[in-house]
Amino acid sequence: MNLLLLAPDDLVAPDRACIHDSRRLKHLHEVHRAACGETLIVGMTNAGIGRARLLTLEKDQAVFEILHLDDAPPPALPVHVLLALPRPRMLARSLENIATMGVKRLTLLHTARVEKSYWQSPELQPERIEAHLRLGLEQARDTVLPTVDLQPRFKPFVEDQLPAALAGQRALLAHPGIGESCPRGLPMDQPVTLAIGPEGGFIPFEVEMLQAMGFEGIHLGERILRVETAVVSLLSRLF
Amino acid sequence: MNLLLLAPDDLVAPDRACIHDSRRLKHLHEVHRAACGETLIVGMTNAGIGRARLLTLEKDQAVFEILHLDDAPPPALPVHVLLALPRPRMLARSLENIATMGVKRLTLLHTARVEKSYWQSPELQPERIEAHLRLGLEQARDTVLPTVDLQPRFKPFVEDQLPAALAGQRALLAHPGIGESCPRGLPMDQPVTLAIGPEGGFIPFEVEMLQAMGFEGIHLGERILRVETAVVSLLSRLF
Repeated sequence: MNLLLLAPDDLVAPDRACIHDSRRLKHLHEVHRAACGETLIVGMTNAGIGRARLLTLEKDQAVFEILHLDDAPPPALPVHVLLALPRPRMLARSLENIATMGVKRLTLLHTARVEKSYWQSPELQPERIEAHLRLGLEQARDTVLPTVDLQPRFKPFVEDQLPAALAGQRALLAHPGIGESCPRGLPMDQPVTLAIGPEGGFIPFEVEMLQAMGFEGIHLGERILRVETAVVSLLSRLF
Repeated sequence: MNLLLLAPDDLVAPDRACIHDSRRLKHLHEVHRAACGETLIVGMTNAGIGRARLLTLEKDQAVFEILHLDDAPPPALPVHVLLALPRPRMLARSLENIATMGVKRLTLLHTARVEKSYWQSPELQPERIEAHLRLGLEQARDTVLPTVDLQPRFKPFVEDQLPAALAGQRALLAHPGIGESCPRGLPMDQPVTLAIGPEGGFIPFEVEMLQAMGFEGIHLGERILRVETAVVSLLSRLF
């Protein structure tokens, strides 16, 4: 946690925040070992970054005086990630990495090799998704929550919604063994849609359907990466 | 596990392997759901890759007929990573990522902001380190174990051993806010030594000492990444 991410509900006055949740309190007590009077980097969800002074730190609450909150969060990546829904254990870390890297738009997509049971995972509850995104933002000192939409049907999404979403975008399909080696250092003013398959990859029908819609195949070489690692590797190389 | 990594001890005949350990057996049973007669991708530690046919799969052992083992493992990255010893929880994942990405030489280093207690962690036992490296290799379909050396004293290592290790190498120091933006797509025939600091970074004395030895500062921008994520991000961008 390199920034304490506040929510509007944490404000008890315009310059005063009070937090009660065990996660942030535990971090202040055990990792940060914060002391009263100390100033910390704080941010307001979907708004600015600044500093706050810790006034009181108890077992069940911490109170801060907000000194300022007017620095801009770091720039976002110009990318919409279409990610085949990972298994729940990998989803958590993928969400954190996606938020840390600066992605602001994520679609979690069903594909043939996504197990149907993953869509029933409690990890897909909006508050669980948001909790992982918040961890990722706090790591990167960012405040802007990515939007996440769930698309549990591949074909209707690709046929009915994706064409409009691709307008003005360069569309890239990360898939082992197809197309060109992943490009490097793309311009930040060109929006990109990046599709990333599940463990085992997209099936040929899905690859053909996406290529027919204008997706360019890209690959990262011979090594097969876990989904949460592939996300970081692709974004680090593209931008 | 995209490859079943065998050790010489697993061979019961030149073309026959028998495994007993719970980790690989559990994977075969529960994730791979392997069936007798099926062929799997296998590799021999520090040697070739090929295929084997599963002859028997029981609760406590699996027997394979090795069909061939003569494909080459994927190319290694030309990089020696000097990594400030991460906290134990992060070490495990950093080791996996380092092996997956193709690093073959790792030095775990003490620095001022590494907690001394980390050096007492059971995660530093050679068999624990190797277990994490094997997981990373199996993910990437690689067979070649990285060498790992532990340097619990910063100054003696940097003064007495590092100069010789740097001969012929381009030396890069990843540190927020210094030097140039991390370079992209370095030539694969130029060996690189890449130093990565701990949570909180190198202290100024350490940065100056490394810069005086020829390390060029590089950074990844404003966002602060967890160590295991920074390793992937730096390597993906450099190579």
